[in-house]
Amino acid sequence: MTAAPTILPDGSATSPGGFVAGAAAAGLKAGNALDVGLLLSTTTCAAAGVFTRNLVKAAPVLYDQELLGERPGRMRAVAVNARVANACTGADGLSAARAMAQAAEQVAGIPPRSALVLSTGVIGVPLPVDRVGAGLREAAARLSADGGIDLARAMMTTDTRPKHCAQRLATAAGTVTVGGVAKGAGMIHPDMGTLLAVLTTDAVATPSMLAPLLRQVVDRTFNAISVDGDTSTNDTVLLLANGASGVDPGRDASTWALFEDTLLAVARHLALAIVHDGEGATRVLEIRVGGAPTEAAAREVGRAVARSALVKTALHGGDPNWGRILAAAGSAGVTLAPERISLAVARVPGGPAADATDWLPLAEAGHTANPDPDAARAAFAAPSVRLRLDLGIGGGEAVVWTCDLSADYVHINAAYTS
Amino acid sequence: MTAAPTILPDGSATSPGGFVAGAAAAGLKAGNALDVGLLLSTTTCAAAGVFTRNLVKAAPVLYDQELLGERPGRMRAVAVNARVANACTGADGLSAARAMAQAAEQVAGIPPRSALVLSTGVIGVPLPVDRVGAGLREAAARLSADGGIDLARAMMTTDTRPKHCAQRLATAAGTVTVGGVAKGAGMIHPDMGTLLAVLTTDAVATPSMLAPLLRQVVDRTFNAISVDGDTSTNDTVLLLANGASGVDPGRDASTWALFEDTLLAVARHLALAIVHDGEGATRVLEIRVGGAPTEAAAREVGRAVARSALVKTALHGGDPNWGRILAAAGSAGVTLAPERISLAVARVPGGPAADATDWLPLAEAGHTANPDPDAARAAFAAPSVRLRLDLGIGGGEAVVWTCDLSADYVHINAAYTS
Repeated sequence: MTAAPTILPDGSATSPGGFVAGAAAAGLKAGNALDVGLLLSTTTCAAAGVFTRNLVKAAPVLYDQELLGERPGRMRAVAVNARVANACTGADGLSAARAMAQAAEQVAGIPPRSALVLSTGVIGVPLPVDRVGAGLREAAARLSADGGIDLARAMMTTDTRPKHCAQRLATAAGTVTVGGVAKGAGMIHPDMGTLLAVLTTDAVATPSMLAPLLRQVVDRTFNAISVDGDTSTNDTVLLLANGASGVDPGRDASTWALFEDTLLAVARHLALAIVHDGEGATRVLEIRVGGAPTEAAAREVGRAVARSALVKTALHGGDPNWGRILAAAGSAGVTLAPERISLAVARVPGGPAADATDWLPLAEAGHTANPDPDAARAAFAAPSVRLRLDLGIGGGEAVVWTCDLSADYVHINAAYTS
Repeated sequence: MTAAPTILPDGSATSPGGFVAGAAAAGLKAGNALDVGLLLSTTTCAAAGVFTRNLVKAAPVLYDQELLGERPGRMRAVAVNARVANACTGADGLSAARAMAQAAEQVAGIPPRSALVLSTGVIGVPLPVDRVGAGLREAAARLSADGGIDLARAMMTTDTRPKHCAQRLATAAGTVTVGGVAKGAGMIHPDMGTLLAVLTTDAVATPSMLAPLLRQVVDRTFNAISVDGDTSTNDTVLLLANGASGVDPGRDASTWALFEDTLLAVARHLALAIVHDGEGATRVLEIRVGGAPTEAAAREVGRAVARSALVKTALHGGDPNWGRILAAAGSAGVTLAPERISLAVARVPGGPAADATDWLPLAEAGHTANPDPDAARAAFAAPSVRLRLDLGIGGGEAVVWTCDLSADYVHINAAYTS
C-alpha cells in the first residue's frame, strides 16, 4: 500500500528522521548574516554526489569527490560556507577544504573523513579557515531538527530567500521522508553560477543505489535549469541516506519508483525555487521539448533556447519573438530538420494547458503559424510562460526552465565584486 | 617590391576598382532610413562565402550557398535588405529570396543567377518582395563608386553607425585594393545576432583561391568576435574579386602573403567596429589565449570567456574578478590543466603592452598572483581591457574580442520587437 507523497510545510534537509542542522554568522558576510552551516546525521549515511564538469574545480569539489570515492558508505555531516568559493586557490585551497572538514568532524564529534564540504562565493580568495572553524563550532552548538532552514540561509549568496522543502511518502513498509536545501540565484544564467544542493532521506540505501539515482534526478531538475550551470567551479548536489526510517524502498520495484518520484519532486521544487529567485528575474519560462531523437538531445535543444540572451531579453520584454526561439534551437548542435519544427505557447499563461486546445501554435513546419498577435502577446506577458517545441523527429522529451534576462541581472553582477 | 598597405579614408566595399553601390529607403525601416542596398561589379567576379552553421538557415543563406556552389566564378552583384531576415519563412521565403535576386539582376542589367542576396532583421516575417524590388530599382539608379557607405547604412539594424573600410596595397605588379562593409551590433553577444559582411577586391583570383582564404580570415576575425555568432540564421560573409586591377597576387608567395594580411586587416577592422558598436557596450575586452594545444582550442577557450555573462557583467562593473575568467576558461570543453594556467592584464589599458613589464599578473599556476588591487582595478576600468591567458600546455594561440554586458543591452533587446 502506497499513497502520493505529502508535502511538509517548512520542510527541509532536517525533515527526514535523524538529521539535525545549525548555522552561524561567522563574519564572512556583512551584517551578521548566517554564512556557515552544519548538517549532521545521528547515524552513518550512504552518500552520492554530482559535481561540476568544469575542469577548473574548486577545492571543496576535489575534496568531496575523493572522499566519496573512498568512503561513500561512511558519511555523517556536511559543512557549508558562503561568500568565499575556495576555487582557484591551489594547494592552499585544498588544505583549507581539508581543515574545514576536520573542524566539522571535531565540533560534531564524528570520525575523521566523515564530513563533506561545500563552499560558494567569490573565486580566487583564500578561505578564512579560522573564521569558518569558529562558525562551525557555533553551528554545532545550535544543532536541531528545525535547523534545516537556517542551513539554507547560510548557503545564500545573491539569493533573496532560502530554498528548502521536504515530502513524506507512506509505503507498505513504513514512512520515508525526503528533504533538501539549495542555493542558486545567479546560477540559472549562462555560465557558471554556483548551484549547491543537499538532499537527505531517512530511507535505507546503499551508495551504489544512490549514485545512478542522483545522476538521473539531477539531469531532470538542477541540470535542466542551471543552464551551463554544470560548468561552475563549485556546483555540487549531494544526497545522503541515513536509514533512520528503517524502510528500504529498494525492496520492491513499485516502492522504488515512488521513492524515485519523491526525490525527483523534491529536487524539482528546489530547482524551480532557484529559477524563480534568478538574479533580477521577473518572468519564468518553461520549455517542453518533444520529438527529439533522445531525451539528452531534447534537453540540449531546451538548454540552447534557455541560455539564449536574445530569447531571455525578448522574454523580459514580454515579446512573442518566436523566431529567436527557433534560431536558438538550431544552434544547439543537435541534428534537426527545420521544416519539421513546430512551436506553441500555453494560452492560459501558467495554467495547466492540458490539451491541444490550450496551446496557441506559433510556428508549424518551421515557419509562422500566423498566431493572433494579441493572444501571443498575452501569453508572453504572463509571469510564467510555457512553450512546447516539437522537433518532429523522434520520441525524446525533456523539460527545461529558465528566467528572463533583466537589467537588474546586470546591476547585480556588475556590483557583486571580487 | 611591396610596401605596407595604406588605409583609405572613408574606404568601403566600393573602394576597389570596378565596384559601385547604391541604397534606398524602401519603407522597411521607419523614418525614411536606408534599408535596401545594391553592390555591383562592372565585371564578373570570383566569389566565396562563409555562412552560419545554424541548422535553421535563412532563405538568403540557402539561396547563396546553392548559387555559389554552382557558379562561384560568375557573380556580379549583392542585394541587401534590413529589418526582415527572411528566416523561418519556409518555401515562400525561398521564393522571396529568388525574387529578390532576380529583381537585382533585372535593375542592374546583369545575367540571371549572378546576384547574391543578404537579409537581416526579424525572423519569421515574410519578406515584402515588392518593396524590396522597388528599393533595388531606386538603389540601381544611384549606383556610384562612393556608394559603399550608403550600402553599409542600408544593412544596419541596431547598429548605431555604418561599418566600412578599405586598404590599398602596392605590389610589384601594381596596386590592389581590398574593401568591405559589415553590420553587427547585437551580434557579438551570446547566440545568434546576425552578422553580415561583404568584402571586395579588384585583385585577380579564382573561387578556389578565395574559399580557403576567406575561411581562414573569418575564423580569425568575425568568428573571433561574434561569439556563437556562427549560429545565427543569417550570418554571412561574402568575398568578391573582380580582377579590375589586373594584378594577380597569387603569382608569388610573398605577394599572396601580403594580400592575405591586407584582407585580414580589413576584416579585423570591420570585426572590431562591430565589437565597439555592440548593443549597449561601454567597454571592449581583448583576450589573447596562448599555450593551447591548437589554435582552434585557443579560440574555443577565448570564446568561452567572451560569452560568459558573469565575465561580461564584471567587465561592465570594471571589476578585476579574474576568478570568473578562469572558471569560464574551464567550461570551454577544451582539455586544460588548471594548475598551469596564468592570467595577466595589460597595465597600460588599451596600450601596446609590448613586453612583460607592461603586464600585471592576476593568476599564476591556477591561483592568485596577489595583484595590487588598485592596479588591477585601474586596468579593468579602462575603456579597452586586454587579457593574456596562458594555458601552459602547447603552442596554440588565438585572439578573441568581446564587449561588456550592460543594462542597455537588455533594454535594446527587450524592445527590439517581433
